Amino acid sequence: MTTSDDGLGFTQTKQVTLFDAAHPLRLVCGDQLNEVVIAYETYGTLDADASNAVFVCHALTGDAHAAGWHQGDKHPGWWDTMIGPGKAIDTNRWFVIVPNLLGGCQGSTGPSSVNPATGKPWGLDFPLLNMSDFVTVHRALVAYLGVRKLHAVVGGSMGGMQALQWAISYPADLDNAVIIAASSRLTAQNIAFSAVGREAIVRDENFQGGRFTEQGVSPDVGLTIARMMAHITYTSEQGFQEKFGRQPQYAESAPGFGVDFAVEGYLEHQGEAFLTRFDALSYLYLTRVMDYFDPFADSSALDAVRADPVRFLVLSFDSDWRFSTEQSRRIVRRLASAELPVTFRDIQSPWGHDSFLLEIDPYLATVRAFLEAKNDYRGTAWGRA
Amino acid sequence: MTTSDDGLGFTQTKQVTLFDAAHPLRLVCGDQLNEVVIAYETYGTLDADASNAVFVCHALTGDAHAAGWHQGDKHPGWWDTMIGPGKAIDTNRWFVIVPNLLGGCQGSTGPSSVNPATGKPWGLDFPLLNMSDFVTVHRALVAYLGVRKLHAVVGGSMGGMQALQWAISYPADLDNAVIIAASSRLTAQNIAFSAVGREAIVRDENFQGGRFTEQGVSPDVGLTIARMMAHITYTSEQGFQEKFGRQPQYAESAPGFGVDFAVEGYLEHQGEAFLTRFDALSYLYLTRVMDYFDPFADSSALDAVRADPVRFLVLSFDSDWRFSTEQSRRIVRRLASAELPVTFRDIQSPWGHDSFLLEIDPYLATVRAFLEAKNDYRGTAWGRA
Repeated sequence: MTTSDDGLGFTQTKQVTLFDAAHPLRLVCGDQLNEVVIAYETYGTLDADASNAVFVCHALTGDAHAAGWHQGDKHPGWWDTMIGPGKAIDTNRWFVIVPNLLGGCQGSTGPSSVNPATGKPWGLDFPLLNMSDFVTVHRALVAYLGVRKLHAVVGGSMGGMQALQWAISYPADLDNAVIIAASSRLTAQNIAFSAVGREAIVRDENFQGGRFTEQGVSPDVGLTIARMMAHITYTSEQGFQEKFGRQPQYAESAPGFGVDFAVEGYLEHQGEAFLTRFDALSYLYLTRVMDYFDPFADSSALDAVRADPVRFLVLSFDSDWRFSTEQSRRIVRRLASAELPVTFRDIQSPWGHDSFLLEIDPYLATVRAFLEAKNDYRGTAWGRA
Repeated sequence: MTTSDDGLGFTQTKQVTLFDAAHPLRLVCGDQLNEVVIAYETYGTLDADASNAVFVCHALTGDAHAAGWHQGDKHPGWWDTMIGPGKAIDTNRWFVIVPNLLGGCQGSTGPSSVNPATGKPWGLDFPLLNMSDFVTVHRALVAYLGVRKLHAVVGGSMGGMQALQWAISYPADLDNAVIIAASSRLTAQNIAFSAVGREAIVRDENFQGGRFTEQGVSPDVGLTIARMMAHITYTSEQGFQEKFGRQPQYAESAPGFGVDFAVEGYLEHQGEAFLTRFDALSYLYLTRVMDYFDPFADSSALDAVRADPVRFLVLSFDSDWRFSTEQSRRIVRRLASAELPVTFRDIQSPWGHDSFLLEIDPYLATVRAFLEAKNDYRGTAWGRA
């Protein structure tokens, strides 16, 4: 059990304006943003030569609060299993940077932020984002923090996609990339699950064409349904079965159409809890970024990183059916065929996609060992020997 | 390609009142229904000694129109691949009976029917149903049609569950049971998927506590979302990938939150089409029957059929992850441990759960051969030799 006693203690989310009208953020879609505020947390201490920074990218519904505790919270940050003193991303050794994504809703500029040009929330006028836009923002944050070179970029799920994009776009920025339970190209089924979630949101009568904040309402039903459905895909059949089976929610209750089975109570709780921390517009924007992510579609995608190799660790979980082992293998094949140094491991876990958030020893030990290994291939003929 | 020329031609749905105030339907829940109308179709001709009847049970969203064509329709009945002259369930040989389920919405009494006691639609006052209630109704239909003994009861998915229940409750009624892509006990994940669909329906503002018909509205958004999500689970990742991959819906269109990918267009179409033929209340009632189905929970469940063995064929599809091969194996193990004659085959198919509706030759050939095999074990010491 992780408590505030054996981790980072209390941590704090800060905000910084990284782009403004004088230095706007130019997006892949062609638009620009004249104000970009990014929320972030850092853990550990940057060393004198700024060489010990590890950048952590969050998944779809994550935020900057990855580790330690916020006053009054019942749970620590979302990756407290991974990040902390003596943990896999050891804050005694590494200076860890975690931002909330552009397009997110926990302190960073996103579609529910106020559009400075109108004084009203952006809504669907917020520009469409691309995985590369996140990298642009993250590079600005790193520069702001005085870091010139990252020891590693690490992320799970959509966070792994950001790490991959960063490594192939700007390999000189980082020595190592850790890509966990990710994908380099969503399948039709992946897109389908996100599409149904988006449909539930957009067709909620309180969505109001994206102007719900101005109307004083919010598409809670749609967002709840989207989350409940997605949550099923983040766990495994076996995980659900072991946790709930066919156990009833209450010892005695008449059958009906409410919460009869424990698994229904759990899902409903997941859906409700999500409303307190997530925004329907962010859900649309961020899922769409994943749908379009396809970095290897460009045959020259790996030219830059071939010229300046990053060392890769790719991890999957054998029960993950949302972003399956096969999807990780595809990343590995692409990187390996470009003769890049890539380590791959498929971790045994019954818990499905969300395994990347859990305390699974062989998994955490692998990340730790990779980050701490001597990085001695640069400038050598690695992979070409 | 199946056309009206090589099949049954035009078929017709009839209706019959099987229970009335004088002979009410007593339900497992303890309630009774004083009026039960059942829609059904029949194909082929009942022979002189009424020995060639095959009863077909439909799945969650099926109906009585299993084969042949209705005037003006673009598609034949839902199991036209299986039923017809010269097909696996050969209407030249068998007299085929297909009802719409009690609780359904295509001509049979269900929660959107008028409650004779109030003159208004039942809504959520309709009693909760049990798999055994379907069997009670089906037995009444068989008796009405002058059939005393069924050659076989056949069904896929929830239809297979009905066949299983019938065989173990009233083994003297049938010689053979064909149980396809079914389950004898839903997993937590199975229940979870149905729960999210129900939640989308019940929380649609037009659900109106189930009184939507009286209000002149219908929970179309909820029902659409439920269907879209369920449909993903009825196909396989590979099936979706082969059919759609990452193909765009339109040759040229700006990215956004509508239908960008072909798989999204397909799902949206599935959701919309479903509204024309299905009722939100039936969706609630019928999915709940499946959630609670657990016939082997009673340790004496197989006593009757052991005393009067039915011959079983259990089929699964190797890419079916909604009702997996493992779930079929569980049925087989239970039947085999009671020394019942059971044949099992896991059919190779990339199309997931909905494979049971498709024209897959080894599958159809297996059903055909099983139905036509000499049934010579009755009265022998089969399985005990």
